[in-house]
Amino acid sequence: MRILFFGDVVGKSGRQAIQKYLKKLRDELSADVVVVNGENSAGGLGINRKSIEELLDAGANVITTGNHAFHWKEWKEVFDNYPMVLFPANYPGLLERSHYTTSSGLTVMNIQGRVFMECIDNPFLAADRLLEVVPKDTFKLVDFHAEATSEKLAMGYYLDGRVHAVVGTHTHIQTADERLLPNGTLYITDVGMTGPYDDSILGMHKDAVISKFLNNRPARYEVASGRCTVNAVLIEINKENRDIKRLSFIE
Amino acid sequence: MRILFFGDVVGKSGRQAIQKYLKKLRDELSADVVVVNGENSAGGLGINRKSIEELLDAGANVITTGNHAFHWKEWKEVFDNYPMVLFPANYPGLLERSHYTTSSGLTVMNIQGRVFMECIDNPFLAADRLLEVVPKDTFKLVDFHAEATSEKLAMGYYLDGRVHAVVGTHTHIQTADERLLPNGTLYITDVGMTGPYDDSILGMHKDAVISKFLNNRPARYEVASGRCTVNAVLIEINKENRDIKRLSFIE
Amino acid sequence: MRILFFGDVVGKSGRQAIQKYLKKLRDELSADVVVVNGENSAGGLGINRKSIEELLDAGANVITTGNHAFHWKEWKEVFDNYPMVLFPANYPGLLERSHYTTSSGLTVMNIQGRVFMECIDNPFLAADRLLEVVPKDTFKLVDFHAEATSEKLAMGYYLDGRVHAVVGTHTHIQTADERLLPNGTLYITDVGMTGPYDDSILGMHKDAVISKFLNNRPARYEVASGRCTVNAVLIEINKENRDIKRLSFIE
Amino acid sequence: MRILFFGDVVGKSGRQAIQKYLKKLRDELSADVVVVNGENSAGGLGINRKSIEELLDAGANVITTGNHAFHWKEWKEVFDNYPMVLFPANYPGLLERSHYTTSSGLTVMNIQGRVFMECIDNPFLAADRLLEVVPKDTFKLVDFHAEATSEKLAMGYYLDGRVHAVVGTHTHIQTADERLLPNGTLYITDVGMTGPYDDSILGMHKDAVISKFLNNRPARYEVASGRCTVNAVLIEINKENRDIKRLSFIE
Ligand SMILES: [Fe+2]
Ligand SMILES: [Fe+2]
Ligand SMILES: [Fe+2]
Ligand SMILES: [Fe+2]
Ligand SMILES: [Fe+2]
Ligand SMILES: [Fe+2]
Ligand SMILES: [Fe+2]
Ligand SMILES: [Fe+2]
Repeated sequence: MRILFFGDVVGKSGRQAIQKYLKKLRDELSADVVVVNGENSAGGLGINRKSIEELLDAGANVITTGNHAFHWKEWKEVFDNYPMVLFPANYPGLLERSHYTTSSGLTVMNIQGRVFMECIDNPFLAADRLLEVVPKDTFKLVDFHAEATSEKLAMGYYLDGRVHAVVGTHTHIQTADERLLPNGTLYITDVGMTGPYDDSILGMHKDAVISKFLNNRPARYEVASGRCTVNAVLIEINKENRDIKRLSFIE
Repeated sequence: MRILFFGDVVGKSGRQAIQKYLKKLRDELSADVVVVNGENSAGGLGINRKSIEELLDAGANVITTGNHAFHWKEWKEVFDNYPMVLFPANYPGLLERSHYTTSSGLTVMNIQGRVFMECIDNPFLAADRLLEVVPKDTFKLVDFHAEATSEKLAMGYYLDGRVHAVVGTHTHIQTADERLLPNGTLYITDVGMTGPYDDSILGMHKDAVISKFLNNRPARYEVASGRCTVNAVLIEINKENRDIKRLSFIE
Repeated sequence: MRILFFGDVVGKSGRQAIQKYLKKLRDELSADVVVVNGENSAGGLGINRKSIEELLDAGANVITTGNHAFHWKEWKEVFDNYPMVLFPANYPGLLERSHYTTSSGLTVMNIQGRVFMECIDNPFLAADRLLEVVPKDTFKLVDFHAEATSEKLAMGYYLDGRVHAVVGTHTHIQTADERLLPNGTLYITDVGMTGPYDDSILGMHKDAVISKFLNNRPARYEVASGRCTVNAVLIEINKENRDIKRLSFIE
Repeated sequence: MRILFFGDVVGKSGRQAIQKYLKKLRDELSADVVVVNGENSAGGLGINRKSIEELLDAGANVITTGNHAFHWKEWKEVFDNYPMVLFPANYPGLLERSHYTTSSGLTVMNIQGRVFMECIDNPFLAADRLLEVVPKDTFKLVDFHAEATSEKLAMGYYLDGRVHAVVGTHTHIQTADERLLPNGTLYITDVGMTGPYDDSILGMHKDAVISKFLNNRPARYEVASGRCTVNAVLIEINKENRDIKRLSFIE
């Protein structure tokens, strides 16, 4: 099985990049299934029907989210109507909407960290519970949407040998630490993001971000324009081989 | 000028890796000057005379630190006796001990972030003040020791065109986003760490870290053993070229 | 001099209580000057022209604010047009708008804490700077808008003997620790709030607040209705006596 | 039933105050049972055999704790040997050690907040679970050890009508908001502390605390000396009446 996973898609610009490159890369890389983190796909923050439809249309088989999932009220409609859009397992009551198994046999799970983030339920115990409810004989990938490198690596080791891959999202910066953990789980701390590159700080135009850091008063954040960066990983799992490769380019 | 910069050195194991590889890499890569982040060099947390002496002996020309610098009381002796050991500029009263200019003409500056970290003075204003007091006609490199990717990229853009390089430290995971910013500053979000690799979460043995995440009660953290990872960047600045290259290997 | 100080006024309901009781209490208690914290006066969060006009009309001589001051864009108009509306001294660049001296001879200063709050400039150093710029021969009161009891008591001791009173705001709950510090400064950790009492959590209706704590997903906060609580302190400073008395009632 | 509850006892000085006043107040006020929060009873931080023995000897029937309970390794011995010493219910696995029913028929429960504190399990859901396991026909009191006023009031309303009293601890400052909630639960946001008063910030000598706020570098905290303050509440529950009264004096 070959899985193509795209990091947090930011805004219209990120969605356009997905529309332009997803199928192309999928075909070139012979990926069987494509997973996209979409928590920033609507206006740079959150999700809505439109952003979800566009990502699915572009070829995403499963869409994961994270802390920004609930930004727009419309998240409820997505929640009710799109079973392949996942919400983190450790929000109270959401476990059943945090995993999805594709027809190609990949179970994707979505969990969220809580170091330097909102204090939700324990992600490690949520992982245990998830593994009890998902189908046994599928390939298993976890999108661990988290801030702290320590919590992410801890989740990698915690699930090592119990799932095929743990990939991190949320920081919007790709890390260079992809590896095969000792018991066979593929791991990367952060896949990075797909969205604005020029004058961009995690997808937002730099000026407002810097202004906020200088003045501590609200600044009007806007999704940056200009060229896009595309960050993804290709995961390969078969009898002979387990491998995770980073992809990263600026259009 | 060619600068070799090593990310956070963790514990005895990290110091040994520095002793083993620093001069070798410096010579192979024709580096003019070597900078090492040493905030975790003594017992995995903080600095002391011994850890500093070993890093200097191994060939470090400048040693930067960060939030853990003050962990051992002995930091005061280091502070008083080693001018090439830097402390973050935005701790109250430490600006004068946050920069150092080598005989080879490199001015190293050390600043610390405050998103998800202790709330110290504004790092952006500290950067402005630093640039007023350091020598004008030198090469300039900033070690921005910070957690949040947004704050780090913001510092990169804020100093773009005003210093030659901004390199991030603190997360202990190397990022894959090295780049030349539009106005000529070389940038990477995090250089990563130099220290234990096997069964290691940021240098500490995984078991205690996972136990803490599961139980929320104090666990006895220990520096991991086994193989070391070495994370560094090589920065080249000359008339024709400005370049930053990642180095990363497991011994 | 007798100073009447009202804690955070919350929403329309709080403004109505101020309109109903301020002048009455001022006259009954022979207060020379009235200070009101208005950071929640517009819609329960932030300030605007209307909320400020109403508080002034009701008899407030000086209005202090805090972390919510900048919630509505209209704060800029208030900032530009109402010199007796203060903003915390330790936001970058706002020192000159953080103090006001009444014709009756009271200098009010506004500072904000940073423990468990946004990381702005050091409030203790801001206090030092404020004391350099305000008129010398006036009575001096500081509204220290802060969360943590440790930071508030620390500010009390830090300014003990340098100002006449340090009163805390922000937690919306009145504390029972009013006292005369050893060097003559009157102190209370928190004055409390003026606003909705029934089914109210800090002014907001309890249901949404509890829902947020249970589900960790956004809930629509609404200012509670029903009876109001009025929390204030009366400070008396004269040659024979220095005294701080709590006032608290439900209408 | 009349319950006497003492807020966080700090260090030797606090223990001595308990030894001096507990039985005296119990007898004067005809209290049937005495509860003491002891999380700071050993050296100002944490608990040990000695501090627990002294509090029991002084007449405490139940001892509650909080976030500092685990500071000394010796907490495990207390955990294993003193069933009337409680640990917060929402640490993973500790629910069974978070409640105790006295021979006089009072069930005390201990829960911890997580706003501005370590992110443990959900305190509201823990409260629900506790109420399922504790004896039905007893008087019920909850010590909610928490920082944020919003979380504490939310717990009060959440348990209103389901327990007899919810008393807050942890901030070390007594609040003046004791009240009877609409469905019959007695409530106070914080009982305050029992320990050093003079030159004291939450029990610690002011100089180190202020130094830390000024310099952001480690300072050596020491329990303050001088006079003690005693903070408590007396709760009365009987057929005709439900009442909560604050007690506070400096020796
Ligand atoms: Fe996120
Ligand atoms: Fe994101
Ligand atoms: Fe480090
Ligand atoms: Fe660090
Ligand atoms: Fe407020
Ligand atoms: Fe506030
Ligand atoms: Fe305490
Ligand atoms: Fe506590």
